[in-house]
Amino acid sequence: MKMAKTKFSSFLSDCQNRLNQQLHELFITQKSPSPRLHEAMQYSALAGGKRIRPLLIYATGEAFDVPLSHLDKPAMAVELLHTYSLIHDDLPAMDNDVLRRGKPTCHIAFDEASAILAGDAMQTLAFEILSAPNQHLDAHQQLRMIFILSRACGIHGMASGQALDLATLGENITQDELQHIHELKTGALISACIELALVPSQASPEQITHMQIFAQAIGLAFQVQDDLLDVIGDPNELGKPTGMDAKRDKLNYPAIIGVEASQNLLKNLVTNALDHLHLATKKPTYLKELTQLIIERNA
Amino acid sequence: MKMAKTKFSSFLSDCQNRLNQQLHELFITQKSPSPRLHEAMQYSALAGGKRIRPLLIYATGEAFDVPLSHLDKPAMAVELLHTYSLIHDDLPAMDNDVLRRGKPTCHIAFDEASAILAGDAMQTLAFEILSAPNQHLDAHQQLRMIFILSRACGIHGMASGQALDLATLGENITQDELQHIHELKTGALISACIELALVPSQASPEQITHMQIFAQAIGLAFQVQDDLLDVIGDPNELGKPTGMDAKRDKLNYPAIIGVEASQNLLKNLVTNALDHLHLATKKPTYLKELTQLIIERNA
Repeated sequence: MKMAKTKFSSFLSDCQNRLNQQLHELFITQKSPSPRLHEAMQYSALAGGKRIRPLLIYATGEAFDVPLSHLDKPAMAVELLHTYSLIHDDLPAMDNDVLRRGKPTCHIAFDEASAILAGDAMQTLAFEILSAPNQHLDAHQQLRMIFILSRACGIHGMASGQALDLATLGENITQDELQHIHELKTGALISACIELALVPSQASPEQITHMQIFAQAIGLAFQVQDDLLDVIGDPNELGKPTGMDAKRDKLNYPAIIGVEASQNLLKNLVTNALDHLHLATKKPTYLKELTQLIIERNA
Repeated sequence: MKMAKTKFSSFLSDCQNRLNQQLHELFITQKSPSPRLHEAMQYSALAGGKRIRPLLIYATGEAFDVPLSHLDKPAMAVELLHTYSLIHDDLPAMDNDVLRRGKPTCHIAFDEASAILAGDAMQTLAFEILSAPNQHLDAHQQLRMIFILSRACGIHGMASGQALDLATLGENITQDELQHIHELKTGALISACIELALVPSQASPEQITHMQIFAQAIGLAFQVQDDLLDVIGDPNELGKPTGMDAKRDKLNYPAIIGVEASQNLLKNLVTNALDHLHLATKKPTYLKELTQLIIERNA
């Protein structure tokens, strides 16, 4: 993410440092009776990554005058849930990936059992963080956040998306079917980020509706860009090999509608997202720039 | 569980039916976009089982005048968390078990990826159930229950217990080390059952302390009995083979201190548990009988 030192780039690095610092402290305070489990969890949670989901939470908070301190716990929880899903998706029984963020995946660096347990305990930790006594959120807000995240990650969202993704390997799926899988597998958690940040806000039902449409559009845009990177990206910048979808006999956007149509779809999704963002808030700056960054990213 | 039709046995079957009925309804209402994931989750959650953890919750509620309806959600959540842990523990990378409750384990009946995802989504579902709008519990009570369960299941409890259990295979552990593993792997969730049931109660701090000691004692007693059954139990009644710990080069209570000393330990634990139960409540009947049942069980 190279850019001139703008107000936005300071905001980005501040938020990333804020999150990384807190995850770091989390693993210092959260001791485990099993040093190996602790190490495996910490290895994956602190392996870097763009922290896009926490950035979305903080940027949405900023657009709706929610202090960032109120969003630290949901930001951490979302990143832990995302990381748990990566650890499990990488397992030999699933995507069988050996590289993630330029480093050996958890089950390669440790072993399969440790990776399964690290993912399991990381999911639990997300809910522990959100349910622990919180000086910034009231009980109703905390509970609402837990509900939003559990709906996004489980049988109604991410887990079903991954199950469908695996079930359709080698199958001739349509663009609609692909969109449905993406909406579940990555879209649901990205939408949840926006929803979480709005919980402690004063947003009106109308503003929330616009933000939900914004969230759905950027969620899908994020995945279309991911699919494009798998076809035309640079493995060195990505920190993982490209062409993996084809290798797995898995259809993605470029495979179904072509590279150019995928790029056009991406543009339309972003236009739609930004239209609704402008209808939702008069203070969309960082979210707008973050949207651009997400779809212009090389990794 | 053969017994004369007593008030207690009616209570037991009422609670088991109550729980099974609700789990059944849960999987009717909780549709998944992935039929296979839904089927794998339902297969394991409705595979029978003694439902000891929900029974402990209901019996504790009864002893402290908490209406059973207030405890339905925590009872379901605990059973889902327990079932998720069984599905993952049975995986080839962990205990590699092919039979559970007399039926093929989840990864045998389905496949490894489905079993991993079914466990993942089942954990999420437990937290969804506890965070959903609830007519019997207020937000603080719901949040407290989520916190208790996340502490019991994750890095401070069950997941670390399983990690230590795997890490000490083939090692010459002491009785203290074995007790520590058991306390984490099964004790923490059993203690959580008692704690959960007390959340909506009027129990005093002193009563709670006695109940915590009761919970720790029966948690360990449960596991000592489990270890004994693995050595001297009947595979037909258990629904799974015996001698598995020895086969895995895993030390259990009979292996470390002998069968007779294990049986004496069990008796002492139960005496201690019942002493504190009687100090905690004047209405201990069902909990007392349940304790007897747990340690006299053949399966």
